[in-house]
Amino acid sequence: MSVNLIRELASVLPPEGLVTDPDVLEAHRHDQAGWAAAGVPGVLVRPASTAEVQAVLRVAAALRVPVVARGAGSGLSGGANATDGCIVLSLTRMNRILEIDRRGLLAVVQPGVLNGALKAAAAEHGLWYAPDPASWEFSTIGGNVATNAGGLCCVKYGVTGDAVLGLEAVLADGSVVRTGGRTVKNVAGYDLTRLFVGSEGTLGVVTEATLRLRPRPPPATTLVASFPTLVGAGAAVTEIMASTRPSVLELMDRTTVRAVESFKPLGLDVESAALLLARSDAGGEQGVAECTRMVAACEAAGATFVAHSADEAEGELLLVARRLAFPALERQGATLLDDVGVPLSRIAELLAAVELIAERRGVLIGTFGHAGDGNMHPTLVFDRNDPDAVGRAKAAFDDILRVVLDMGGTITGEHGVGALKRPFLAAQLGPESLRLHHAIKSALDPLGLLNPGKML
Amino acid sequence: MSVNLIRELASVLPPEGLVTDPDVLEAHRHDQAGWAAAGVPGVLVRPASTAEVQAVLRVAAALRVPVVARGAGSGLSGGANATDGCIVLSLTRMNRILEIDRRGLLAVVQPGVLNGALKAAAAEHGLWYAPDPASWEFSTIGGNVATNAGGLCCVKYGVTGDAVLGLEAVLADGSVVRTGGRTVKNVAGYDLTRLFVGSEGTLGVVTEATLRLRPRPPPATTLVASFPTLVGAGAAVTEIMASTRPSVLELMDRTTVRAVESFKPLGLDVESAALLLARSDAGGEQGVAECTRMVAACEAAGATFVAHSADEAEGELLLVARRLAFPALERQGATLLDDVGVPLSRIAELLAAVELIAERRGVLIGTFGHAGDGNMHPTLVFDRNDPDAVGRAKAAFDDILRVVLDMGGTITGEHGVGALKRPFLAAQLGPESLRLHHAIKSALDPLGLLNPGKML
Ligand SMILES: Cc1cc2nc3c(=O)[nH]c(=O)nc-3n(C[C@H](O)[C@H](O)[C@H](O)COP(=O)(O)OP(=O)(O)OC[C@H]3O[C@@H](n4cnc5c(N)ncnc54)[C@H](O)[C@@H]3O)c2cc1C
Ligand SMILES: Cc1cc2nc3c(=O)[nH]c(=O)nc-3n(C[C@H](O)[C@H](O)[C@H](O)COP(=O)(O)OP(=O)(O)OC[C@H]3O[C@@H](n4cnc5c(N)ncnc54)[C@H](O)[C@@H]3O)c2cc1C
Repeated sequence: MSVNLIRELASVLPPEGLVTDPDVLEAHRHDQAGWAAAGVPGVLVRPASTAEVQAVLRVAAALRVPVVARGAGSGLSGGANATDGCIVLSLTRMNRILEIDRRGLLAVVQPGVLNGALKAAAAEHGLWYAPDPASWEFSTIGGNVATNAGGLCCVKYGVTGDAVLGLEAVLADGSVVRTGGRTVKNVAGYDLTRLFVGSEGTLGVVTEATLRLRPRPPPATTLVASFPTLVGAGAAVTEIMASTRPSVLELMDRTTVRAVESFKPLGLDVESAALLLARSDAGGEQGVAECTRMVAACEAAGATFVAHSADEAEGELLLVARRLAFPALERQGATLLDDVGVPLSRIAELLAAVELIAERRGVLIGTFGHAGDGNMHPTLVFDRNDPDAVGRAKAAFDDILRVVLDMGGTITGEHGVGALKRPFLAAQLGPESLRLHHAIKSALDPLGLLNPGKML
Repeated sequence: MSVNLIRELASVLPPEGLVTDPDVLEAHRHDQAGWAAAGVPGVLVRPASTAEVQAVLRVAAALRVPVVARGAGSGLSGGANATDGCIVLSLTRMNRILEIDRRGLLAVVQPGVLNGALKAAAAEHGLWYAPDPASWEFSTIGGNVATNAGGLCCVKYGVTGDAVLGLEAVLADGSVVRTGGRTVKNVAGYDLTRLFVGSEGTLGVVTEATLRLRPRPPPATTLVASFPTLVGAGAAVTEIMASTRPSVLELMDRTTVRAVESFKPLGLDVESAALLLARSDAGGEQGVAECTRMVAACEAAGATFVAHSADEAEGELLLVARRLAFPALERQGATLLDDVGVPLSRIAELLAAVELIAERRGVLIGTFGHAGDGNMHPTLVFDRNDPDAVGRAKAAFDDILRVVLDMGGTITGEHGVGALKRPFLAAQLGPESLRLHHAIKSALDPLGLLNPGKML
């Protein structure tokens, strides 16, 4: 069977497109998610063109072999994890920027292009590719599209899906479909583009993306505020969102602040319940005016310390604490970076609930994230070698997802369901929606070969 | 058969929910699209709840009767037109605003709520529901969602779909599905919300929508510029989009300007090739700065006249010409308000092509629309009682769609495919995408009862 598979693939791919070296396969078994199971791939393919992707999928369909699409493998949900005997289909060789159309404000790229490479190419034309996952330097556009990746600037400029005008994808039977196009607005037919966005490799392999570029926003004014209570921080977030248009609105809880301060002393108030970091890129006086309104919102909500700066270098310094949040927590043990979302009005409640879970389960949990979108990352820190600690962390992880669902939230705001959260999806969607998901999956991939065991 | 249908419906609906009066049925046969065929409905139902919608759809499924969902009937593609013997399912009685959550920045509404009613309710809470089709005073949220309606502010704030957080929809078999939720970001499962948005009543009946609200933007600065050439106007549009963030960017061609000027003399330059109207709501000094940049872009592109004002009342006056565009053209004869989209860089080309078509076919065509989104409305004016003129207008309509497709554009940017453009959809989508559309349609509506003959 496997011999047969390799022979068939060798007949459609050049030698450099086909890898069976066990060490290389091992390196392509899983992504960056801690707890998700990963199988042993049968083979790794590295197609260089859409035609080669088609050929691979035709072989896979003929031999009924599962296919796991893979970008940089930076995912945090096990979405790119191998299943036993599968073809891992890496898109990293399809890494050309095909076009930057300055007048049309768009770019056409292959899926293996790094987010950062596109940002740089757009900047050369005086333009901006907005989506900014923290993994922008190493994650691929294909992976960003397949997970609908978020980031800091989503709160004003939207998620990856908001920047996708059109896609080319290869379906499970090897056929190629193009969705959307080069226009900003388009209502001709169903929104298949958005169906593929966030589908985690389960509906098709993205082989090209047409992406929206924008003018670069003006320099930002940055604000930091600390709050003695979570309720105060939550109130500041909702008031800022209801009265201004922040370009960044991030929050760190006490555990995270302490981790950062002990990693790199910045003079943060380790007694405060939460630290808020906000930006306005409204520009010039208006930026300052927005920032003033944010300051007022923070003070009205009981902030004990507020600082802000219109200076870019100073602003970057104020954001340093946020950028160190994950590295600082990582230094304290093994981590699981979770990703949940709640309605904007319930952030304080979520943070309080997570604190309670941390206490009850005896697990260190630092929470930080995109407060302006209600999208937070409770990060569990534990001793990997202590089975009891791992068990308590797993229990806390489950608790958090249950609490989030009780609040009318989502089990994932930007990292995806993957393998990690598959057991929880049904509880969020309910039976009717789940049935609809399966109906769509069957319509597009009747043999169930694309990334089986992920999401659904 | 029809007697049977009425009897079955009567057993699940109260008397006021079931209408067979031929005059009322006649008034529910078609929407506002001129040329789309419309059949004679068998019956009109006016459910007052999701449960009643479910009951109607179960009856329809059992008896294999087609169902045409209908909001205000203001559509411009024949999307809500009846098919012979169908059930017209009017959502206008489901017109309650269920919730305005100021802190959560969202509203939950029934589908029959008017766009304008939601705007007003949001304003009472100091908030803003952004999507603003020109039909906002009389079109419904359900219709807006089902067509993914656009408007003037999309260029900065997105289309209806960008404001939809979640939906409740009744499927063809009468089951109820909920999509999305109350969070801004959500990647748990496929984006079914976006699948229903713009699906024109062919996949399900929207019975509830959770919509995003925003803070009201600052007052706008308004600019008007006239251009001696289309190329100049097109260049100004692309430059403005590449360097600023206009909250409105509209264009009117010479034919439209002349129609307005002869309808209501405003002192517009009837010799200019095009008039551009732009706004910045960046606020305060920044708004003025953005406007100054727009002025510079217009002048660099050869504008012969530029005026701007930061005064709100004056700004409204400057926009009057745009608001009169359609009424002014309507005064000159029967009209077909077309709706096409091209990549941003090709607007001048589109306008030139439409001028040529108008000349060659001997049809008056005034073009205006959302230039900043590449979404234009070539409006054909003809004598309804002259078969030859109607024939020439139809030929021109076809020509325009062909030209748009040749430019990599879309046959509809915001009005939908409906019955009017169904014959052109295949040419835009291509066979693979069309096959995928049918696969999805079959998965959700295997009997093909929801709005048959529309879109697909
Ligand atoms: C330090 C760090 C910071 C991060 N910060 C963020 C953040 O701020 N926001 C955020 O959203 N995520 C973040 N992530 C998660 C991750 O980087 C994103 O999910 C990213 O989009 C994954 O891209 P990738 O190329 O690594 O894809 P992979 O991990 O290789 O794959 C991700 C998923 O997409 C599928 N896939 C990949 N390519 C394709 C394709 N061409 N066609 C179809 N399916 C495909 C895979 O099957 C898998 O299901 C972070 C990760 C790390 C390690
Ligand atoms: C003067 C005028 C100006 C206009 N300006 C604009 C504009 O600026 N931008 C724009 O985009 N459009 C515009 N339109 C077109 C029209 O108003 C929009 O398409 C609007 O969204 C239709 O809403 P409606 O309630 O009238 O829906 P209808 O016309 O009744 O229905 C439209 C479509 O939606 C379906 N539908 C309706 N309700 C539901 C539901 N609850 N569930 C499922 N399907 C449903 C119908 O089956 C049909 O396919 C304009 C129309 C007029 C007459």
